[in-house]
Amino acid sequence: MAAAEPKTPAGAAAAGRLARSCWSAFWDYETPKVIVVKNRRLGIVYRAVQLLILLYFVWYVFIVQKSYQDSETGPESSVITKVKGITLSDHKVWDVEEYVKPPEGGSVFSIITRIEVTPFQTLGTCAESMRVSNATCDSDEDCVAGQLDMLGNGVRTGRCVPYYHGSSKTCEVSGWCPVEDGASVSQFLGTMAPNFTILIKNSIHYPKFQFSKGNIENRKDGYLKHCTFHEVSDLYCPIFKLGYIVEQAGENFTELAHTGGVLGVIINWDCDLDLSASECNPKYSFRRLDPKHIPASSGYNFRFAKYYKINGSITRTLIKAYGIRIDVIVHGQAGKFSLIPTIINLATALTSIGVGSFLCDWILLTFMNKNKVYSHKKFDKMVDAPEQGAGPGLCASEPSQQDCVLTDARGLAQL
Amino acid sequence: MAAAEPKTPAGAAAAGRLARSCWSAFWDYETPKVIVVKNRRLGIVYRAVQLLILLYFVWYVFIVQKSYQDSETGPESSVITKVKGITLSDHKVWDVEEYVKPPEGGSVFSIITRIEVTPFQTLGTCAESMRVSNATCDSDEDCVAGQLDMLGNGVRTGRCVPYYHGSSKTCEVSGWCPVEDGASVSQFLGTMAPNFTILIKNSIHYPKFQFSKGNIENRKDGYLKHCTFHEVSDLYCPIFKLGYIVEQAGENFTELAHTGGVLGVIINWDCDLDLSASECNPKYSFRRLDPKHIPASSGYNFRFAKYYKINGSITRTLIKAYGIRIDVIVHGQAGKFSLIPTIINLATALTSIGVGSFLCDWILLTFMNKNKVYSHKKFDKMVDAPEQGAGPGLCASEPSQQDCVLTDARGLAQL
Amino acid sequence: MAAAEPKTPAGAAAAGRLARSCWSAFWDYETPKVIVVKNRRLGIVYRAVQLLILLYFVWYVFIVQKSYQDSETGPESSVITKVKGITLSDHKVWDVEEYVKPPEGGSVFSIITRIEVTPFQTLGTCAESMRVSNATCDSDEDCVAGQLDMLGNGVRTGRCVPYYHGSSKTCEVSGWCPVEDGASVSQFLGTMAPNFTILIKNSIHYPKFQFSKGNIENRKDGYLKHCTFHEVSDLYCPIFKLGYIVEQAGENFTELAHTGGVLGVIINWDCDLDLSASECNPKYSFRRLDPKHIPASSGYNFRFAKYYKINGSITRTLIKAYGIRIDVIVHGQAGKFSLIPTIINLATALTSIGVGSFLCDWILLTFMNKNKVYSHKKFDKMVDAPEQGAGPGLCASEPSQQDCVLTDARGLAQL
Repeated sequence: MAAAEPKTPAGAAAAGRLARSCWSAFWDYETPKVIVVKNRRLGIVYRAVQLLILLYFVWYVFIVQKSYQDSETGPESSVITKVKGITLSDHKVWDVEEYVKPPEGGSVFSIITRIEVTPFQTLGTCAESMRVSNATCDSDEDCVAGQLDMLGNGVRTGRCVPYYHGSSKTCEVSGWCPVEDGASVSQFLGTMAPNFTILIKNSIHYPKFQFSKGNIENRKDGYLKHCTFHEVSDLYCPIFKLGYIVEQAGENFTELAHTGGVLGVIINWDCDLDLSASECNPKYSFRRLDPKHIPASSGYNFRFAKYYKINGSITRTLIKAYGIRIDVIVHGQAGKFSLIPTIINLATALTSIGVGSFLCDWILLTFMNKNKVYSHKKFDKMVDAPEQGAGPGLCASEPSQQDCVLTDARGLAQL
Repeated sequence: MAAAEPKTPAGAAAAGRLARSCWSAFWDYETPKVIVVKNRRLGIVYRAVQLLILLYFVWYVFIVQKSYQDSETGPESSVITKVKGITLSDHKVWDVEEYVKPPEGGSVFSIITRIEVTPFQTLGTCAESMRVSNATCDSDEDCVAGQLDMLGNGVRTGRCVPYYHGSSKTCEVSGWCPVEDGASVSQFLGTMAPNFTILIKNSIHYPKFQFSKGNIENRKDGYLKHCTFHEVSDLYCPIFKLGYIVEQAGENFTELAHTGGVLGVIINWDCDLDLSASECNPKYSFRRLDPKHIPASSGYNFRFAKYYKINGSITRTLIKAYGIRIDVIVHGQAGKFSLIPTIINLATALTSIGVGSFLCDWILLTFMNKNKVYSHKKFDKMVDAPEQGAGPGLCASEPSQQDCVLTDARGLAQL
Repeated sequence: MAAAEPKTPAGAAAAGRLARSCWSAFWDYETPKVIVVKNRRLGIVYRAVQLLILLYFVWYVFIVQKSYQDSETGPESSVITKVKGITLSDHKVWDVEEYVKPPEGGSVFSIITRIEVTPFQTLGTCAESMRVSNATCDSDEDCVAGQLDMLGNGVRTGRCVPYYHGSSKTCEVSGWCPVEDGASVSQFLGTMAPNFTILIKNSIHYPKFQFSKGNIENRKDGYLKHCTFHEVSDLYCPIFKLGYIVEQAGENFTELAHTGGVLGVIINWDCDLDLSASECNPKYSFRRLDPKHIPASSGYNFRFAKYYKINGSITRTLIKAYGIRIDVIVHGQAGKFSLIPTIINLATALTSIGVGSFLCDWILLTFMNKNKVYSHKKFDKMVDAPEQGAGPGLCASEPSQQDCVLTDARGLAQL
């Protein structure tokens, strides 16, 4: 193209020169012109502001908040639990099979501490519970046959029958009889419950960082058989006494055992994966999860039954179980050095350091005794005469540039 | 060090001067030299671009997206559920103990709406179900003794026996007999099911912000006994009718009760913790979770059995239960003012405002009628004569700098 | 205000002029003065540094890390599972109802592969297990009546009785008798277990992006009845053989079936929602979750019982079940283009490109043969004579500015 130049007309030659010169200009290096103000006071202010910003970034952003790390929350988690212990009620011995529901050893399980048993229920007719609204009656006329109260125990037969105890009468219902409120017996299982031991095996995995860890130490066989959890000395022995969990959650065991309640065992895996794996340790905390202070919904209970067939007819034992439900909740956040957040934060840091320039420009052009001189040096005015309708003479008589320095975002824009 | 200066040779003196002068230069303040172009049109473009960028950041980034906040997703959550209500099938009354599985009141539970009962199953031999592939036979030769079909009901004995009803024959199997398909009876429990009430107690905790809240209002004892959930008037009464949940999920109750299905009750806690805690409210939504439109996998059912011992031999009642499974899913995101995201976004905003300069530089040096003058003022050319092999004379005859202003990233680099 | 100017005193006039002039200055356009160094070598260094940084951002930050996307982790997820298959032990045929616990088809379930059955347990008195510490005795004096060992099977009666087998004696306890260790019989169910099929229905929802998807393909009715999962050819047929899961987790089936264990089926939904929905596919992985290498806590088992009433007294069959627990864990991250991260990363990119200037300034002012000339051009020194106590003469004799260029953060601050 350069060789063809002499023969082409002037326009093509100009275009060729333009292209060549742009290509040449592309390789030029440009650097802004700078005014150096040899003023110690201003320099100190400037450096002090820079230092403060730098300190903030180095200390708070990078050291405290670890902003150079990529992070991942919510690890994959697996929880296996196992309760051990036996307890006594008035009548009998209870073992794990009987008081832990469900039995599979998952992350949520209930330890039954009190039961209200209604034995020998069969499908038949009997007096409705007095707790059901409009259940009390004087005569059969008060009871509508076929009526089904959603909160009751069966379909009304239309008859008014004597209640289980006392002299009052309630409507008869057809359903599982006798009804719970009339015939249930309470048993307290919680006497030995504070000594139950709960083994909580937890393993986590951070997929982003390919990091896995468990909460059990790989020690000689005998250790796990005898240890109990201690935050400092036995962190990797995840065997908790139920009493310890209740105490740590700030609850009264006897009260909780009577009304039931839900306790959270929260395992937190906050891990800095830039350090060695042994620095990534679980942190346990314990908290009551059900709304304790709301009378109508406090406590925790559920019903289950055991079904028997006697002489061909089905009988069941209905059990209303109050208990301590344990929810094992696993949380965590892992961080590891990563280029992207580091660069974003570094760039932010550098950009922020430039804020010092804005402050110092303002001081320089406003408060310093030679500010007109500085202003003149810094600002090189060019007036577009035809557009402004004002000559350079007016400009000279006007207040100098630095008076307005704060009225615009010029300094900011040049960060 | 300064005192030793006169006695040392020239090199040391120079080094001392250098160190002292650098130290002195460190306290100099530097500010870029600026050309002020007094052109109203260009100024307006410049300010307009800045304003647009500013508006975007203030309105969208800061107000809409709340980028000044640190956020946390996935709160620790605990769910306690309790179903109430009774229903009727043809034969009997069903209470909560019978139709809710599992009974413990966790975040996932099923309400059985239809069952297929196979009573009096014992371990023995009987005809295989006709649904099992290759089960039909004409003579014993069609049945291989000892064969075990993974989708069948037992080990084949090698005999061909009459089916339960009709005139066909199937291979005999050894297992729980009679097999389900041959002898089961269907019962529909769903007639009253839309009126069942489901209490969902949920408490959440954002560990990063140490914020906890529950979905039950602390009101006088009686409130929870009579209220029903309403999005506006009774937001803190988490008692739902099953029919309401099904309707909100856009499903037909009768259909769902027959085939079974999984419904999600999604509780979303989007909280702006810069506001008061009372502004952080749960938001409920309801959605069908199982793949409704895929015939082969639609619906939800499971099997369980009740075991009885009669005269020393074990009998079981196998129940195939179709039901509505409710998955309570808790989600949420909390945000609270935090310095780091604020500073990162502010720095980005300021950096972005500088983009205006690039646009205006280009206008200034390309389109304005005195662009050669501006270019001359802005760019101070220094030609490295020996390296370029071209004198300043060539430079003057070349197209001026501003023609190339878009060919490089110079403007961007100076942001 | 401008109209009132001539009549007001000089101060007001000056204020008016100031306001007007500031308003006028607001519309001025300012652009930094730039020195163009026509040096090809420096230009190449400058552009090369810029190119490297640009490449890093375009390739790594934007293409690899997809930093232009807003992301959401932890989708709402619902899992429905269904196991199919039958197996044989020595004595009997086992169907799904018997070996899958709990039966409801949730995300966590156990497939029982081995059981230790203790039949005919009743509440009574019998010899304590020998595994309980201090249970062995020689005479009644070794046994304290009323003592309750938390890891034992009942309250000690104070008598020393012969053990179930062998010639040794242990303390008698009152509880469920006979105790497990003395009378249990082992049965292995796992022979056919590798052929069990597990259907895992999973549907996810990303609330932020309003995106839902399931892991089952909507194909003609028959497909799901015959297919088996294959990573490539049958990705949307989530039917897994238990043997396949165990094998993929790198475990030996027979060993696992004997000791029990917990396997994770991890479904990962990494979705780029800028692409079509069909590009968002589940990725399955399989991992053992319980701590395999820790002898004391390896394996998985739990106890449940079946209760019978015979002649009015309750008998139970206690079953210690070893099995393979499957935890279906759903993870995922969805990303979609969003302005905020794009702008933050773009701004960072642009800021970072400026780093090239710092490097080139340093080369320019330090290494180039005309560096004094450049320094003189770039830096316009203003000495505050009264404050520094040094005249311009001293300044001229001092080492020039560029010697110190690295001692301060000036270049960085001007990024």
